[in-house]
Amino acid sequence: MKRMLLTISYDGSAYHGWQVQPNGITVQSVLQDSLEKLIGTRPGVTGCSRTDAGVHALEFCCHFDCEDFLPEITFVKGLNSVLPKDIAVKDCRRVANDFHARYSSKGKQYVYRIYNSAVRDPFKSRYAWQIERELDIDRMNEFCAKICGTHDFAAFSASGRTVSDTVRTVSECFVKKDEDFILLKITADGFLYNMVRIITGTAVGVSDGKISPSDTDYIFASGDRSAAGITAPPNGLFLNKVLY
Amino acid sequence: MKRMLLTISYDGSAYHGWQVQPNGITVQSVLQDSLEKLIGTRPGVTGCSRTDAGVHALEFCCHFDCEDFLPEITFVKGLNSVLPKDIAVKDCRRVANDFHARYSSKGKQYVYRIYNSAVRDPFKSRYAWQIERELDIDRMNEFCAKICGTHDFAAFSASGRTVSDTVRTVSECFVKKDEDFILLKITADGFLYNMVRIITGTAVGVSDGKISPSDTDYIFASGDRSAAGITAPPNGLFLNKVLY
Repeated sequence: MKRMLLTISYDGSAYHGWQVQPNGITVQSVLQDSLEKLIGTRPGVTGCSRTDAGVHALEFCCHFDCEDFLPEITFVKGLNSVLPKDIAVKDCRRVANDFHARYSSKGKQYVYRIYNSAVRDPFKSRYAWQIERELDIDRMNEFCAKICGTHDFAAFSASGRTVSDTVRTVSECFVKKDEDFILLKITADGFLYNMVRIITGTAVGVSDGKISPSDTDYIFASGDRSAAGITAPPNGLFLNKVLY
Repeated sequence: MKRMLLTISYDGSAYHGWQVQPNGITVQSVLQDSLEKLIGTRPGVTGCSRTDAGVHALEFCCHFDCEDFLPEITFVKGLNSVLPKDIAVKDCRRVANDFHARYSSKGKQYVYRIYNSAVRDPFKSRYAWQIERELDIDRMNEFCAKICGTHDFAAFSASGRTVSDTVRTVSECFVKKDEDFILLKITADGFLYNMVRIITGTAVGVSDGKISPSDTDYIFASGDRSAAGITAPPNGLFLNKVLY
């Protein structure tokens, strides 16, 4: 048995997230279909995380096992020849048999893109959350600084989560302006369900003056989802990097 | 009666082109639906050109007539509030009653985007034609220089065209590299059906050595579609500007 690690990139617009669902096409199911076309059997593919419907990935990692060794380049070229255009295999490498795309990960980095302009633009808003009013980057960064460190992120997690341990360590969280866009970059050892989207929504709430950066400690302590801001829409969110 | 000129932008991926079709959703039909929602009547909207299925527009112009005067900003904000996200109204202005989006146009500028890389990228290939082999920009520009000027472009037009006059004047045609992309920019007083896509496909044929730049005069003289290169796919083509 050989364990292979795939690095893929996808435009999540058309998918119901990563994980196989009873209804709706997912990236995982399309990838498994493509592997089956390529090697004749249908290995289960294990992802580094679940991503929500409509979320994108510049770099998403997943592993699968196969009996026969095919050269790595065969998987890259072969899968790319059968995958739809909105999913691409960037890399394939053999890993140790105890490697696990999710559990071996030391952390992940996400980028949330806000298109901060009053001008409607179909090309910019496909991959971003458009906010017309001018955002206050300094205030957002005051809030982002409070997010850094080890905290119980229960209040920044959607209800319906199944994990019991909600403590995570955020090593980096900041916003920066990039022409018409404001990018929120966040790196952590792990993320709860909807965590980046809720942190982004809260950062916008802070910019709007609805929430004060100094409220952050209270929000953490409350563990109460309703104390944090809104959930930013999925189409602005990109999984940027998986750390092993 | 007031004649209004709209400037719109759209991602054409989901549309069967501009013009109303018996089957399939078009930009024109969606825009007319949105106007009807806004003003209660359904004016015909006349576009500056037909664009093909899957072609995009950074700037597309169209006019319609209405009885009651609404402030221009009402059309911009009102239409944007009901249009789908892949169509945006950028501007609205009242024009003279004899102004015509198509016949008053002095020319148009298109940009064709080639993603010239062996690396598959779902975000880059959505709005470009991916070509893996390295293209020869100098050779492409030799061909583009031949395209400039007044010529009979019948050979660079899809069969099935209905116009009889196939002479057009190209004032500008060149390619330039922009990171991973090669952009073909072309400005002319008018364009035949599929003309930019066939010129782009021929420029790639020239790069590949299948066609020599010096063949261009022969292709013009032949008037024969099959003498030119392939038709580049629609998703790389952008209407960039309409000149009045």
